Amino acid sequence: MDQCNVRFLPDNLTVQVSSATTILLAAGKAGIQLKSGCGGKGTCGACKVILVSGEVEVESTGNLSREKIDAGVHLACKTKIMGDITVEVPLESRLAEHQVLMGSANGLLSEKEINLLSQYGLTPLARKISVHLPEPSLTENGADWPKLNIELKKHLGEGKIDIPLGVLRQLPDALRVGKWQVTATLVELNDRYELVNVEPGEQVNPPYGLAIDIGTTTVVVYLVNLATGAIIDKQGTYNKQARYGDDVITRIVYAVDAPGNLAEIQAAIIGTINELVDSLCTKYQVKPEEIVGAVAAGNTTMTQLFLGVSPKYVRLEPYIPTMNSVPPLRAADLGLHMNPHGAVLNFPSVASYVGGDIVSGALVTDMSNGDDLILFIDIGTNGEIVLGNRDWMVACACSAGPCFEGGGITFGMRAMPGAIERVEIDAQTFDVTFKVVGGKQPIGICGSGLVDCLAKLREAGIIDRAGNFQKDLQTPRYRQTHEDKEFVLAWAHQTPGDKDIVITENDVKNLIRAKGAIYAGIRSLLRMVSLEVEMIEKIVIAGGFGNYLNVKDSVQIGLLPDLPVEKYDFIGNSSVKGAHLALLSRAAWKEAEELGKKMTYLELSAGNDFMDEFVSALFLPHTDLSLFPTVEG
Amino acid sequence: MDQCNVRFLPDNLTVQVSSATTILLAAGKAGIQLKSGCGGKGTCGACKVILVSGEVEVESTGNLSREKIDAGVHLACKTKIMGDITVEVPLESRLAEHQVLMGSANGLLSEKEINLLSQYGLTPLARKISVHLPEPSLTENGADWPKLNIELKKHLGEGKIDIPLGVLRQLPDALRVGKWQVTATLVELNDRYELVNVEPGEQVNPPYGLAIDIGTTTVVVYLVNLATGAIIDKQGTYNKQARYGDDVITRIVYAVDAPGNLAEIQAAIIGTINELVDSLCTKYQVKPEEIVGAVAAGNTTMTQLFLGVSPKYVRLEPYIPTMNSVPPLRAADLGLHMNPHGAVLNFPSVASYVGGDIVSGALVTDMSNGDDLILFIDIGTNGEIVLGNRDWMVACACSAGPCFEGGGITFGMRAMPGAIERVEIDAQTFDVTFKVVGGKQPIGICGSGLVDCLAKLREAGIIDRAGNFQKDLQTPRYRQTHEDKEFVLAWAHQTPGDKDIVITENDVKNLIRAKGAIYAGIRSLLRMVSLEVEMIEKIVIAGGFGNYLNVKDSVQIGLLPDLPVEKYDFIGNSSVKGAHLALLSRAAWKEAEELGKKMTYLELSAGNDFMDEFVSALFLPHTDLSLFPTVEG
Repeated sequence: MDQCNVRFLPDNLTVQVSSATTILLAAGKAGIQLKSGCGGKGTCGACKVILVSGEVEVESTGNLSREKIDAGVHLACKTKIMGDITVEVPLESRLAEHQVLMGSANGLLSEKEINLLSQYGLTPLARKISVHLPEPSLTENGADWPKLNIELKKHLGEGKIDIPLGVLRQLPDALRVGKWQVTATLVELNDRYELVNVEPGEQVNPPYGLAIDIGTTTVVVYLVNLATGAIIDKQGTYNKQARYGDDVITRIVYAVDAPGNLAEIQAAIIGTINELVDSLCTKYQVKPEEIVGAVAAGNTTMTQLFLGVSPKYVRLEPYIPTMNSVPPLRAADLGLHMNPHGAVLNFPSVASYVGGDIVSGALVTDMSNGDDLILFIDIGTNGEIVLGNRDWMVACACSAGPCFEGGGITFGMRAMPGAIERVEIDAQTFDVTFKVVGGKQPIGICGSGLVDCLAKLREAGIIDRAGNFQKDLQTPRYRQTHEDKEFVLAWAHQTPGDKDIVITENDVKNLIRAKGAIYAGIRSLLRMVSLEVEMIEKIVIAGGFGNYLNVKDSVQIGLLPDLPVEKYDFIGNSSVKGAHLALLSRAAWKEAEELGKKMTYLELSAGNDFMDEFVSALFLPHTDLSLFPTVEG
Repeated sequence: MDQCNVRFLPDNLTVQVSSATTILLAAGKAGIQLKSGCGGKGTCGACKVILVSGEVEVESTGNLSREKIDAGVHLACKTKIMGDITVEVPLESRLAEHQVLMGSANGLLSEKEINLLSQYGLTPLARKISVHLPEPSLTENGADWPKLNIELKKHLGEGKIDIPLGVLRQLPDALRVGKWQVTATLVELNDRYELVNVEPGEQVNPPYGLAIDIGTTTVVVYLVNLATGAIIDKQGTYNKQARYGDDVITRIVYAVDAPGNLAEIQAAIIGTINELVDSLCTKYQVKPEEIVGAVAAGNTTMTQLFLGVSPKYVRLEPYIPTMNSVPPLRAADLGLHMNPHGAVLNFPSVASYVGGDIVSGALVTDMSNGDDLILFIDIGTNGEIVLGNRDWMVACACSAGPCFEGGGITFGMRAMPGAIERVEIDAQTFDVTFKVVGGKQPIGICGSGLVDCLAKLREAGIIDRAGNFQKDLQTPRYRQTHEDKEFVLAWAHQTPGDKDIVITENDVKNLIRAKGAIYAGIRSLLRMVSLEVEMIEKIVIAGGFGNYLNVKDSVQIGLLPDLPVEKYDFIGNSSVKGAHLALLSRAAWKEAEELGKKMTYLELSAGNDFMDEFVSALFLPHTDLSLFPTVEG
């Protein structure tokens, strides 16, 4: 069978496939995930691509308009490749871009991020140094490595330089092939350097690094040019561990259930990262050996699973992690697709439920460098909260549950295309208007939509302060089924499916418990240090959720403290951003290590005020209305 | 049952035992091994200890004299501890001191070796520390590793403790299985500790170590109890690399000849060592995981092959090794059959032909600690020579060839059973008497026999000073074949074979070249530092050869300087002895590292006086007879 080259734009990725392969499959081979709602039947029209050149065989144009067909649009699932072709894949046809929250929406560092990096200074984890050694003779016949060591120290100062065995093995030939000129790649660890690569001659290619966010649900990798600090690209995907359970608890249960499970679940996360790295390497023609450093951040369980350290006791009272700081590792120890001698740093954790991702996020908030009292909240499956400034920090984790990521809610979903992210309800007519991620027909509701929904249901008087539906609502949107009371947000005809999208009373109660847990966590931390909410100078919110969150509505429902909107700041995926910062600045990494030690962990299950606070927060916005002066009771 | 504290002097070690435990068992728990010839029956009287204070119950005083009893002497095996006591353990009651003695041909270390160890102090490469951690709770919920780290530091002082990933993985279960009591095995490296093993509960088994001599021809391994310093046993065998060539040059040629050869020849030496280790482990029921440290010494080529570092440039002018010092490695990096996290230290080399085996030997000579001028000669395939004292050292290697190991000599062989090691020749009758290793019939001649032979041939006037056979010898032992002139040392009927054992004129010339090279090396070193041979206080000779060498005959032929026999000292396999010393004493290892740096290497092929010296030394004993005043010309 003939082989055809398929080039995808704007990625400029080329793959080879057999003729008569569909463009959909070819795109998959290139690592480009297309939407395919109908599973390749040609009916949903989601996998639109534009044929730029080359020969194809069209099996079906589905519901494509004449205009689109004339413009070269094809359905990737119903178009067979018959020769070398070039295809453009529009953003809206891509699955990946929307699935995972990247460091920032447009791929560029924000001004704040740039300022933070300049504050710490660009001193990347690894750098290349090119040196020339004097050629040896019978009278000057010292060994290779001590001579190189001396030359390198002229550039590095006094730190000890360690050479791994594998690099020692490369050294003699590299020196002689390069005619005594070599380029050494050095990783700078806290108190020493490690020579991770030695290449003959003077090499100008930069060393590359990885910033990795190991999320329970999604994993994000930045490929970074360590010479300039530039992010070459970022990619994200679902954590392959999902097949062992959705949350950390089910994963821990699986990991410790049988011998071999821990290795299997570790292999899943390593495989997830490696796929992203491979894809980035292919796309940008970077060799894995050129990637010489990585900084990873994850919650405590994710970090232990990444390292193959059993998280068994993270789950069992009194919830003890194996370690906080992780010694620097070599890539080969973990099987990451990078230079085997490359260094892998893991953000330190604080406790079993305040992990490296939170330390990484706190680093990005810069809260440890100022006097202002800062509250940092990372809302994901758990809500982790840090309060403090340069002098002290306290942290806690509240089991908010997965509501804000769509879990445990009838029509809950993540912030992906098709998710309702904004809701308005007319207090008179109870008519609903909404905004959908991707602008298409709605298929569910994501976290920000749920917050909105709760606020608007209350505002319109549909639910009371305790979250109970009013009984006498005069609208077909309200109905009582044999299971529950519910309110229709979108009628079936407005959706691609055949079901009304509703929010039930049970959903509302779940949301109130989730928001109550987070607010109670905030209150508990404040109590611990005897401070009032008004003393907070800035509230920084991280998480997929955080990108889209409406502050006003969040305050309305009592999820967030009633403070002026200008005190709020959203930083998206702060975990990978902190990893990126630490990759680029040794001072920032050092600060992260200090941060990990500085945070005092408050165990909310250990007989303090949390339960009282939680119960008081199970109202909209709160039992104590004086805490929410701007909210009408 | 009551617990009693038992304090041992002069060690000042305290252990806790149940009351009614014997002092013998308590001493074992403290790591103090007492002699116990009768197995604790109270009859041999070897386990004498002196009770300083406290209450005991005496079951028997055996054959102790009234005087001894009055002086507080007790039999440790027949004295039960009934409260807190203090006991002094005299040196003569200790087993360890005597076990350490097992270390040479007759299984004992010499007094000199014991003195050397006490001079540096018994601070082994690894030790076990048993600690108890406070059980965690919801309010004291710190991570496992930081808590263990703190406890260990109480015992170790300020050095940083690194934990390998594999040990981190063992830690959580070990702590909980041991109910928060664990025994940690720590390897002490120069500036830090490495936690190589963690076992639940209080473990009393000692950590084990290996002292390894990687010889070109033979490999020797000591299995060592690191708690007491005792050599459990030693085993040696031929280096499996022999199949790739007899000497370092042919091995290097093979190693660099084709891809894969280096790995193959490395696997051969690792396999050789592993077979010895396996055999020792089986014999003494030691688990490989219990072996947590190894110190290896070999010449530069052997060391590089052991590490899989190509020795290509060791062979090519200007003879550059890849490294001198080798960073501490983990056993898993090399595939040695021991604890994968265990440390493997390699003696540093000085140059391509003065390797770690010579640094190890120099350590054993103790030449770096005194003012006396010491000459150290290791005679193997090459002759390596070191001259110096505490202030300075010079070293060289002379290509003596393999004569003294039996190579290149018609009936040459190693010092094994069947080798002629002593020769007498009647100057009148030319009758030959000889002594054979193992006392059996002769099958060849070893190095010491060849030295004797050369001296006796000259003494009897059979050869002249240049090594030419006299033409008019009236004996059937002298004959001229079509190939060469030869002298019969043993007639065929005296041997198990059917051939006369002879020495040929060519053999004699080869021997003269070999002894000339070594003597010229000695002279070159002396010239380099402008000293005379008479200023040498001690000549220390190492090598298999050295064990049997006749000093008088060696001087007669001009192999060794003409100095009084009492200035000579033979130390056998100094390479493995130095490795053993370094395994048992961190101070000795540090000294070895310094020694490696301290030695100035003299390259004999680099346009100095060596060639002149060599030519002058091609006579028996020498062209310049004034150098050998006790030898009749």
